[in-house]
Amino acid sequence: MSYSMIKDIKESPLYHILNPESIAFFGASNRFTAMGTSQMVSILSLGYEGRVYPIHPREEMVQGLKAYKNVMEIPDVPDLAVIVLPTKIVSSVLEECGKKGIRHAIIISGGFKEIGEQGHRLEQELISVSRRYGIRMLGPNCIGIVNPHLRLNTTFIEYTATPGFIGMASQSGSFITQMSSYLSQFQLGFSAGISVGNEADIDIVDCMDYLFHCPNTKVIGLYIETIRRGREFIELARKIVPHKPIVAFYAGGSEAGKRASLSHTGALAGPDKLYDGVFRQAGVIRANSIEELFDFCWVLGKCPLPGGDRVIIQTHSGGPGAVTADACERSGLRLPYLSPESEMQLSSVIPHTGSLKNPIDITFTKNPFDYFSTIPGILINDENTDILLIYILMPSKTISRALESMGIDEEQIEKQAHEMIKSFSNSLNQIFNSVKKPIIGFSYQPRDDGLLNIMEQSGIPVLPGPHRAARAIMALVKYTHIRERYKQV
Amino acid sequence: MSYSMIKDIKESPLYHILNPESIAFFGASNRFTAMGTSQMVSILSLGYEGRVYPIHPREEMVQGLKAYKNVMEIPDVPDLAVIVLPTKIVSSVLEECGKKGIRHAIIISGGFKEIGEQGHRLEQELISVSRRYGIRMLGPNCIGIVNPHLRLNTTFIEYTATPGFIGMASQSGSFITQMSSYLSQFQLGFSAGISVGNEADIDIVDCMDYLFHCPNTKVIGLYIETIRRGREFIELARKIVPHKPIVAFYAGGSEAGKRASLSHTGALAGPDKLYDGVFRQAGVIRANSIEELFDFCWVLGKCPLPGGDRVIIQTHSGGPGAVTADACERSGLRLPYLSPESEMQLSSVIPHTGSLKNPIDITFTKNPFDYFSTIPGILINDENTDILLIYILMPSKTISRALESMGIDEEQIEKQAHEMIKSFSNSLNQIFNSVKKPIIGFSYQPRDDGLLNIMEQSGIPVLPGPHRAARAIMALVKYTHIRERYKQV
Repeated sequence: MSYSMIKDIKESPLYHILNPESIAFFGASNRFTAMGTSQMVSILSLGYEGRVYPIHPREEMVQGLKAYKNVMEIPDVPDLAVIVLPTKIVSSVLEECGKKGIRHAIIISGGFKEIGEQGHRLEQELISVSRRYGIRMLGPNCIGIVNPHLRLNTTFIEYTATPGFIGMASQSGSFITQMSSYLSQFQLGFSAGISVGNEADIDIVDCMDYLFHCPNTKVIGLYIETIRRGREFIELARKIVPHKPIVAFYAGGSEAGKRASLSHTGALAGPDKLYDGVFRQAGVIRANSIEELFDFCWVLGKCPLPGGDRVIIQTHSGGPGAVTADACERSGLRLPYLSPESEMQLSSVIPHTGSLKNPIDITFTKNPFDYFSTIPGILINDENTDILLIYILMPSKTISRALESMGIDEEQIEKQAHEMIKSFSNSLNQIFNSVKKPIIGFSYQPRDDGLLNIMEQSGIPVLPGPHRAARAIMALVKYTHIRERYKQV
Repeated sequence: MSYSMIKDIKESPLYHILNPESIAFFGASNRFTAMGTSQMVSILSLGYEGRVYPIHPREEMVQGLKAYKNVMEIPDVPDLAVIVLPTKIVSSVLEECGKKGIRHAIIISGGFKEIGEQGHRLEQELISVSRRYGIRMLGPNCIGIVNPHLRLNTTFIEYTATPGFIGMASQSGSFITQMSSYLSQFQLGFSAGISVGNEADIDIVDCMDYLFHCPNTKVIGLYIETIRRGREFIELARKIVPHKPIVAFYAGGSEAGKRASLSHTGALAGPDKLYDGVFRQAGVIRANSIEELFDFCWVLGKCPLPGGDRVIIQTHSGGPGAVTADACERSGLRLPYLSPESEMQLSSVIPHTGSLKNPIDITFTKNPFDYFSTIPGILINDENTDILLIYILMPSKTISRALESMGIDEEQIEKQAHEMIKSFSNSLNQIFNSVKKPIIGFSYQPRDDGLLNIMEQSGIPVLPGPHRAARAIMALVKYTHIRERYKQV
């Protein structure tokens, strides 16, 4: 049976789960230590503007909202039910939801298939209730969803990143809920985050279809421990990848990962090579760590596609240049020489101690602006350049000291450093906008320095370290080929 | 000819270079844009307590210090000359230093062998001057040294990390000067940092010998583009590694890296496999990136050596557990099961939704202190455990929210969060001190969160991400074997 793609995002079973106008919430109380309470507080605290109806057998009010004794008492029919209740009563509560006319549910509760035979029976019961009432459900044993663009977060951990462009579907809730600070440091965020849990109904394939149609999603990220519908996965991915890249991390390839994921979502994980083949056939780019998954999404969402795999490296220090050249070649990228025209142009701005051979080593520049305007301008416009990779070193303290030495007032230094970086960023941004080639930075500096963030606001991703940058560039190059290959399908 | 190791640190040609009581400085002025000036300012600003004599043909005072027209006028014989002058005059200045009786020099100036034949001739001239006067020199074309324990920094970039235990010798000055912020975020720092430049006299082998004898150095880190004395390198390393680990990053294995490093220090880099063999024969642990180099040094400097390669993973989230299991097995580590005794002990503190199979998945704990005391205590004491690897998730905001929900005063929250983490750290630290097995944490949280730093003060390295943690643990395991193997040599 061939996978039939949805035509419109509203056809997706996930549409009302990610974009509900109203939510019936089961399991929140006024006890702060209850997990259900944390989750309802998350919904309220991110600023969700839809209606929320807590259901509670005894309380009049829950977390400041009017509570209902049961779902039937709610004045309208909510778009979505979120259920965080003891395993044994989940099916009967879902049944009441069905009677009320609710057609979408997130089942947070665990204790189903993942714990063995008894749980398996309870899960079958849940499935038959959902089918009887035509309820599409996410979970059980999941953490829920985040839709930051709608300010909706049903998970029990606060979402602190900005609304972003990464549409993530995950067989681990942790990678939806526990990555906010991680993503924030790179100014990244989710367009939508979906924890699929046991996939009793909605699975990772449904998520891909939704995310393909989601206008806020530029790149689809997947955390996979197992694929339940292999054929549909491949078919759908092939339809998506000419338009949106898909990046996947697969855990469970090793014996231990397999054992871990078995108890985790109750699925049996397959061998590593099999998944490698599935991803290759599907046009999905494989990442080797969670960090790499987000690096790939980052660069794929921010950069134009390169015309080839030839990287020009710009540096002002020999060591980082050599390490980066090494990293690029190990990642399978090519390092071309510049054209004689560019070499000639550069010779007036690069001192004789520098190098015009790739990596282009500026050593010392009299005018630091050259590093962010004249030089990258020449490099990116060279016909031999497909991608420009720039070493970025901007420790606040060094810049402050330089400004201090120019006799600038102490109070003015921070402001001036900020403006200096801003004008560097603007220069790079102008170049970036004038040519449709990727420009990527890399730096060893930590993010709390603050200056790297200004840099990134110019639209240029600054990856942490040359190896991560090189591998992310390779993902860009791979995606160019994937797009080409599946265009005709 | 067999390499004859020095008996005492004072025999090292680097001793007076890294521990001078007085310095003659050539090339600083009152012009702040001159590189020499930056370097002398670095010496003064870190708080070096020795005497500094600037030499300047015209100025009376340089950077607030009395200046001397030439080296002969200095009232005593400085331990060290630092020379940042135009290439052409370096030899004659070194000759004057020789006449004065100075026997140690750092030649920062470039324009020697690294630029081709003409530079090569100038370098030969420099070498013959140094031999004539018995001057031991570092460079030319280097960035100098940092000895943070002596508050001495001769490089042109401020050293902002703390004095640490990593003794680093580098064929790129950048990895001495540009990593301060990077190292600081992990509370790491150099015991000594040496930029060797063209190695006209003192080379990387001399540095290893010095660092072996340096009491502040626990681990030796090397950035290598070429080894000039291969046999001596292997011989000396074999003598060192039973006592101190050596970690090396080699750049130049790929074609492009080779090209880059050729123009960088004027050395011809060899093929990757050759270097791999050299490191293996020498008992040197090879790192695949600069980040990994420092990760390995970090863990090797902080942890006791494990009795084997069996890692127990502790997590409270399934996904990070599965990813970590995968990462460990891919790094070649084993993941044992716990003994039945430990399983029994754990069953009272881990809910039924958790997992007692490795990775040990706590899921939710009623008492968060269990995660940092009872549970790791049981795990590390299991006879099947050689190393404990713990997932650390402590976003300040989540902790704040938890405290808020307990009704704690807003003003008190930050203080309480701090104290909470501190008591977690203390619990872990107690366990860490009671058993001589490595405990290592990993986290996806950025360092600016602050709480991870408190964690690390307990002596437990918290690596950024499970893959980096797994690879660092593998370095620990490798070093155990290396130590064993070369003990008898």
